[in-house]
Amino acid sequence: MPKVVYLAGPDVFLPDARAHAARKVEICARYGLRGWPPLSEEGGDLAAEPSFEAWRVIYDRNLAAMESSDVIIANLTPFGGASADAGTLIEVGWFLGRDRPVFGYSNARAGFSERTREHLALTGTAGQGLLVESFGLPDNLMIAGAVWSGGYPIFLPQDDDRRGLDALDVFEACVKAAAELLAEE
Amino acid sequence: MPKVVYLAGPDVFLPDARAHAARKVEICARYGLRGWPPLSEEGGDLAAEPSFEAWRVIYDRNLAAMESSDVIIANLTPFGGASADAGTLIEVGWFLGRDRPVFGYSNARAGFSERTREHLALTGTAGQGLLVESFGLPDNLMIAGAVWSGGYPIFLPQDDDRRGLDALDVFEACVKAAAELLAEE
Repeated sequence: MPKVVYLAGPDVFLPDARAHAARKVEICARYGLRGWPPLSEEGGDLAAEPSFEAWRVIYDRNLAAMESSDVIIANLTPFGGASADAGTLIEVGWFLGRDRPVFGYSNARAGFSERTREHLALTGTAGQGLLVESFGLPDNLMIAGAVWSGGYPIFLPQDDDRRGLDALDVFEACVKAAAELLAEE
Repeated sequence: MPKVVYLAGPDVFLPDARAHAARKVEICARYGLRGWPPLSEEGGDLAAEPSFEAWRVIYDRNLAAMESSDVIIANLTPFGGASADAGTLIEVGWFLGRDRPVFGYSNARAGFSERTREHLALTGTAGQGLLVESFGLPDNLMIAGAVWSGGYPIFLPQDDDRRGLDALDVFEACVKAAAELLAEE
């Protein structure tokens, strides 16, 4: 039985989410892993009508998939602010809480302090005396620590090329490392 | 022994973080709970020199405190973007993964869809076709679901007064509910 990878990330919000997820699953398969992207078979869920039932169905399905997964590989590219996608962070924390390996990557090279300062400037909240985390990390230290628990730092681009949320080369490096770790178990 | 509450939130970034934490601990005590704010006794940690050791010390200390806590009460007021503070979300996910009760509150009344659209406009990324979650929730559905696992929704202001990150009335309503739940156990 191949190990199951929960493919967390804001990738679900991409306009071509389904095709993109298929590419991630294919990369996982190349390394002997079964990728599970948090998308329903029917699709279009996130744009569903705003009801309690609609979002609970997605939440319950994601949680069940997390339960069935051996490892998480999270796309931690900044989304919706200075940090990674909010839903993804809940999922990363969950895997940490379950003592299951956490892997993460980001397609952005700018550090967290720099992005936080940019955000404060952009939103006009720079003068409120808020402390800015300055550890030279790619994101908040709790994220960095959660990912380190898997034995690796957050995977980052190794060159200066600009990458979008959907670039997959850094993801693939991450999958390779996860496959090696899982093969040792 | 009073139950221990992990007081998660971006409150640690406030200029008067220590005095503010003391106020939260005092409110918890009034309801028979022991509040644990993630601040060191020495203080000033987050502004420490950027070294591996410095942030790992904080991470390890936070994780040890989470292990010793019965419940999390998270300040989910938007911070650093459209969603709640990134580190706080890792902690919320961790409590969910450990099957411990999750409570959360926000001092902002605007919904997540509205804030996400504002963020997209502000950062000039509105035209990239990214899907916007539209369930009428206060934040990403994984956060809403994690908090619902504690039996309550995310606590929100009940009037139209504007509140800062550091307002404590909604927090107190949340503490009261947590105390009631823990008393039943």
